[in-house]
Amino acid sequence: MIPNRHVYVLGGASTPFIGKGHPDFVWPKHPDFGKRENPTLEEHLTRAIMLALETTGVPASAIQRGFVANFAGETFASQGHLGAMAVRAHPDLAGKPWTRVEAACASGGCAVVSAVEALQAGYDVALVAGAEVQTTVSARVGADYLARAAHYALERSIDEFTFPAMFARRWKAYSQAHGVTDADLGHVGLKAYQNANRNPLAHMRTARRSLEWCQTASDQNARFLQNEELKEHLKMSDCSQVSDGGSALVLCTESGLARLGKRPSDAIQLRSVGQSTGPLAGVTDLLALDTTALAAAEVFGDTGVGREQVGVVEVHDCFTITEWLMLEALGFAARGRAPELTLSGATAIDGRLPVNTGGGLVGFGHPVGATGIKQVVEVWRQMKGLCGDYQIASRPVFGVTANMGGDDRTAVVTLLENVA
Amino acid sequence: MIPNRHVYVLGGASTPFIGKGHPDFVWPKHPDFGKRENPTLEEHLTRAIMLALETTGVPASAIQRGFVANFAGETFASQGHLGAMAVRAHPDLAGKPWTRVEAACASGGCAVVSAVEALQAGYDVALVAGAEVQTTVSARVGADYLARAAHYALERSIDEFTFPAMFARRWKAYSQAHGVTDADLGHVGLKAYQNANRNPLAHMRTARRSLEWCQTASDQNARFLQNEELKEHLKMSDCSQVSDGGSALVLCTESGLARLGKRPSDAIQLRSVGQSTGPLAGVTDLLALDTTALAAAEVFGDTGVGREQVGVVEVHDCFTITEWLMLEALGFAARGRAPELTLSGATAIDGRLPVNTGGGLVGFGHPVGATGIKQVVEVWRQMKGLCGDYQIASRPVFGVTANMGGDDRTAVVTLLENVA
Repeated sequence: MIPNRHVYVLGGASTPFIGKGHPDFVWPKHPDFGKRENPTLEEHLTRAIMLALETTGVPASAIQRGFVANFAGETFASQGHLGAMAVRAHPDLAGKPWTRVEAACASGGCAVVSAVEALQAGYDVALVAGAEVQTTVSARVGADYLARAAHYALERSIDEFTFPAMFARRWKAYSQAHGVTDADLGHVGLKAYQNANRNPLAHMRTARRSLEWCQTASDQNARFLQNEELKEHLKMSDCSQVSDGGSALVLCTESGLARLGKRPSDAIQLRSVGQSTGPLAGVTDLLALDTTALAAAEVFGDTGVGREQVGVVEVHDCFTITEWLMLEALGFAARGRAPELTLSGATAIDGRLPVNTGGGLVGFGHPVGATGIKQVVEVWRQMKGLCGDYQIASRPVFGVTANMGGDDRTAVVTLLENVA
Repeated sequence: MIPNRHVYVLGGASTPFIGKGHPDFVWPKHPDFGKRENPTLEEHLTRAIMLALETTGVPASAIQRGFVANFAGETFASQGHLGAMAVRAHPDLAGKPWTRVEAACASGGCAVVSAVEALQAGYDVALVAGAEVQTTVSARVGADYLARAAHYALERSIDEFTFPAMFARRWKAYSQAHGVTDADLGHVGLKAYQNANRNPLAHMRTARRSLEWCQTASDQNARFLQNEELKEHLKMSDCSQVSDGGSALVLCTESGLARLGKRPSDAIQLRSVGQSTGPLAGVTDLLALDTTALAAAEVFGDTGVGREQVGVVEVHDCFTITEWLMLEALGFAARGRAPELTLSGATAIDGRLPVNTGGGLVGFGHPVGATGIKQVVEVWRQMKGLCGDYQIASRPVFGVTANMGGDDRTAVVTLLENVA
């Protein structure tokens, strides 16, 4: 959908994404254990909102419409009704309409879509905030909660770790169909960690990984699935992180920019957004992300922008194989050809198509509800030269984000343009 | 908000709302126990969608945008990502954007708001479906899940039954401030049950209650709170039902009507909708629903329609006291004067301001995610003369719905006009 009323991303911010492996994350072996607690869901949400307001210089009173993206607050944090939680962040937010949006790991993208729609209805300034905590329970219990993004009754039993198994199934099919191996796929994980090492907000900012480590199962990089047919097709280094964190951004119309004393060049433009939803338990092709491809086709078809014009990409690498499937669904590579993009260096920070420059879901982390919003924040930051050690050299004119829920069941793709 | 592009409610439908006390609800003492199961969340959602399509004669392929309202699927049904669940209802729904919206008990109202916004963005036909199951766990566990609509960390401990206690607190304050008693309030419960007795879809359709029963605590109508200060201020007959069920409706623009071969007179018009959100744990006045009042002021202020023009009302009677507080927040009575409306018979089906003609949340039932949608469906049914035994005599020109999440933390008010 091309918005009739132009929509601008004025900017945004993310909290640090933290969890096991992050130096600030408190767990039983941490020196602060028993002395302080990790931030709560409310704290991550509030911090993200306040950071986005500070970063953009927008007063809370200017926010006319709000959306909160969160997947599983009811389970991990015993908390729903997060629109009414968000307005606790600042007294001037109260009274306005705030709504929580959920589409599993695509919650953030869907919240952006809903905000774009709200701006078409007449609002001029909207805030979109996503947050998640997942470290309040064990990995096993967490995997059970996350399985609620699949068809629980039909799909839960594939493995104790439902989603890792679903994407192991995709990697098994892909590697067999296209003749690529863990040695190739390891380059995706390596890039994620290397990018994260330059990103002070990344969950894996201090975790150094070698190529060999990412390519090879080991005691520290275990194949942890129980499913005998899939166990060989996934290791820890292929997985995104179980992270806590939040991201938020301010979207506005041209009237909104004017009211805030901003110019279009202070922002980036959301040229088009596509959302597509497929049925749970309805994947028919393990070798393609059909739902993501639909959303991408809408966005590129709407605008006529060519893939070769795109200078920065954020894809939903919930697992390393997903990065390749996403690049193919977005049309940046033909089927089976995404590995070449990675192996040629094209997707590196200094490549021609930098992908997940902050580390992606594998390196930056994956606080579920925040992810789709963080992707847009990251493209805005790259376009405005705010990425510090992981800034790409040439400011991209066009950027793309692709956020996905479940096994390609909800997809949101945005096309962003630097109007500077 | 008055929609720039006119929005019409083409119609909708609800499943039977069932739970303990409903003759079809399977529980250990039911003759079918062990022979069949109660419908699942997916089944209620799917049935509501298909019923809405059948009732309106709209083919699934015409639906361009979908919203699902649900509060707590992750806990009661181990299921999130309900947009992708909804599109399983019909193959022609797949591929379109579907989003789940949550604002506790106002989830349904918020989904209507989001659909109105989506129609402003260019879509012409939208489907909004809400569903909830709550009978999968004990009442005590369910009360814990429902407490996620409050600020769990700060408010959970008021009572094992958090929300009943929060509204007992309001009734305690109201009865003391305005000199009304359980003998007065019993008339609200009596009306709910009597209306439900005429409604074949109502949870309490077969439950006969006398005025005395609704006025008086007894073994069968217990004061069940533990909190000593609040225990005296709530009994079972004051509470809405723990129900399973679903509701869905089709919203469209004028272009949508034309495309579907319909005229405005086949529908009712959504003249205005207001949504307001207040901070969790932020109630400052026990004697008023401030957030609902804000949303109502917006709707009436927008349109200039007077309260005296309204001929049918659906309010969110999560507890009997809430019906009075809602009537005051909507401006149908001054503070402390709503009891007179009830006691004079004005809110009865044959009164001048019929309220909750199908039984409301107390009698019809309260499958949380469905409720805000059911309210709009009910006004449409009254306006089109489809309510059978509980049809009001004169077709109302204007109708109002008021849906609320938590303790007046999110509120959605709609003003609907019969354009026939």
